[in-house]
Amino acid sequence: MAASQRVYMDWNATAPLLDEARTALVAGLDLMNPSSVHGEGRAARAALEKARRQVAGLVGASPANVVFTSGATEAANLVLTPEFRMGRRAVSIGHLYVSAIEHPAIREGGRFSVGSVTEVPVTSNGVLDLEALRLALDAHDDNKGLPMVAVMAVNNETGTIQPLQAVAERVRAKGGLLVVDAVQAVGRIALDMEAIGADFLIISSHKIGGPKGVGALIARGETLMPAPLVRGGGQEKGHRSGTENLPAILGFGAAAEVASQNLEDRNARIASLRDRLEAGMRQVFPDVVIHGAGAPRVANTCFFSLPGLKSETGQIAFDLEGIALSAGSACSSGKVGESHVLAAMGCDPKLGALRLSLGVSTTREEIERVLAAFAKVAGRLNRNGQAA
Amino acid sequence: MAASQRVYMDWNATAPLLDEARTALVAGLDLMNPSSVHGEGRAARAALEKARRQVAGLVGASPANVVFTSGATEAANLVLTPEFRMGRRAVSIGHLYVSAIEHPAIREGGRFSVGSVTEVPVTSNGVLDLEALRLALDAHDDNKGLPMVAVMAVNNETGTIQPLQAVAERVRAKGGLLVVDAVQAVGRIALDMEAIGADFLIISSHKIGGPKGVGALIARGETLMPAPLVRGGGQEKGHRSGTENLPAILGFGAAAEVASQNLEDRNARIASLRDRLEAGMRQVFPDVVIHGAGAPRVANTCFFSLPGLKSETGQIAFDLEGIALSAGSACSSGKVGESHVLAAMGCDPKLGALRLSLGVSTTREEIERVLAAFAKVAGRLNRNGQAA
Repeated sequence: MAASQRVYMDWNATAPLLDEARTALVAGLDLMNPSSVHGEGRAARAALEKARRQVAGLVGASPANVVFTSGATEAANLVLTPEFRMGRRAVSIGHLYVSAIEHPAIREGGRFSVGSVTEVPVTSNGVLDLEALRLALDAHDDNKGLPMVAVMAVNNETGTIQPLQAVAERVRAKGGLLVVDAVQAVGRIALDMEAIGADFLIISSHKIGGPKGVGALIARGETLMPAPLVRGGGQEKGHRSGTENLPAILGFGAAAEVASQNLEDRNARIASLRDRLEAGMRQVFPDVVIHGAGAPRVANTCFFSLPGLKSETGQIAFDLEGIALSAGSACSSGKVGESHVLAAMGCDPKLGALRLSLGVSTTREEIERVLAAFAKVAGRLNRNGQAA
Repeated sequence: MAASQRVYMDWNATAPLLDEARTALVAGLDLMNPSSVHGEGRAARAALEKARRQVAGLVGASPANVVFTSGATEAANLVLTPEFRMGRRAVSIGHLYVSAIEHPAIREGGRFSVGSVTEVPVTSNGVLDLEALRLALDAHDDNKGLPMVAVMAVNNETGTIQPLQAVAERVRAKGGLLVVDAVQAVGRIALDMEAIGADFLIISSHKIGGPKGVGALIARGETLMPAPLVRGGGQEKGHRSGTENLPAILGFGAAAEVASQNLEDRNARIASLRDRLEAGMRQVFPDVVIHGAGAPRVANTCFFSLPGLKSETGQIAFDLEGIALSAGSACSSGKVGESHVLAAMGCDPKLGALRLSLGVSTTREEIERVLAAFAKVAGRLNRNGQAA
């Protein structure tokens, strides 16, 4: 099958680059160092600050509070630290509470020691257990420092939307800090930093159609900030040193501007495609399990299991049919391990699961091609029983 | 003066993007996530590994030992840590010794505490004082852990070449680790990791004509590695998590391949231009001080002072004449501070200094334009005395 005929259904891993982002990136390739004082440096600086405004606009933040990083993973490692500063005063964070379905970049706990991180469980639908969060925060020892809670806005594997405002209320009641991994949420649900009440947001460029290699940590205020992770020349007001990745940042800005427009229309179209997809899957194979289907989900994600089909086998089978999908998150090289998200939802983590994730350029015809491949793969299962 | 007529003489801050790097980067814009298992992911992975071989080839390293980072600053923060691992065994680094002329990314000491970093002085020519290094290492307390020494191959402000092999001998004699910031050296001097005897090299893409946003930490072996700085999905064999910045990495690879070719021819041409420049400057203004001129220097850098001319004033004056130069390193936003390099060389750090740095596309005509601007700026000084 020719490469051009392939169907890309792995937008949650990387979204194809938007034309607007490509144009902005290419225009940035000839800009010089934004820290230089000469005319070339000032032009680079002006472009950088425009992108900062575009990214801030996506989440209703102030441009002054956007710190560009090399991606969401670095942003997570920057903010997840016991050491904060309020101006010149040191502020200590005593313990980190993360949901059990966070991305590894959050679950690893950044600069917190292993003993300073507690996982908060989720329900069988993959939604944070708010009562468990309340109990965990009630048991927090304030003598060690403030509590920090990290909850993703949208899960990368299931697409379930987390109850952020309820989380924020509980965190505020304990005087803690709320960090929201919004990587899979921006451009898919309306997200306003103030409305949520998040202290920090983490976003990634290449998940919204911008280039790889750039992300941001966005703070609600300017004063309370984490100790820098990458130190040196003092760029990004000292919060993140190193020459700014200007072309990628400009592409990120352009993608952010696109993502902040026409959200409802985009979602309506993608939701109708996903609904068609899931209805077709159920028709062909009624025992298909669609994870998180009972909870609010973003429009583009379908995380499913076919009893008897292993993730590895399924991934290869679909790939041979020309369909690019994934077995949960695409992280370390080619890893096809058990899903910690499914395990946290109380499913047997050995149950194979596959993720189809759609995007703005996904077509009805592509959905039909996925369904045809699904019928073939499921058909082999029906014939072979558990041995497929 | 039209922008097209400007003369860019700030290659040490950022080199203009090479055509080869642009082509490779643009070809990488449509590649997907190299950690994905599907065909698109495998194609991305193959491109990534090609770039790794190209970058390794630039410094005679094994591709397996190249860790891509978001830039040299991140690479410095990754390697400068008391926590190392030899396989599963923890190895402790007790103290960091840095030359007094290192880039801020090294001088800040990464994850070492302030009390665990010692600066080793340089001579008035801007070359590391080897006797001072020997004394510092003799005083090292092995009970605290191994010593680590970080010395740059070429200074970014003066262009002086540091005596790396002599440094490596002293470090080896003490059983320590040698980290070499080779950012300003690769593509300008021949640099072979084995020949030097460096344990780790740090390089940056945008200083050799590659795109911004990417660099590498290159290890001599595979076993002894620093504790990760950015943790999460486990990319780069767990040494550096986060989706790889693939387009930039491909551009970096292409630039590394170009930089490893025709070194002598390139240098001969640039040296003749720089010699013409410095001879012209001395003719117009015999009191011009050229820093580091008494030591081995790379061919492209001229760091000079005109007695009575402040850095800020000089920078603006040349900018108005259409010449982009800098006052030492371009780091934190628009900072025009005193040069720690000049101070370490025993010069009055208040002495204004300006850096002209040339590159592969610098022309003879541009040098004459710089000299014409130099004559104007120096002429005003001659008329106005110290008040200019």
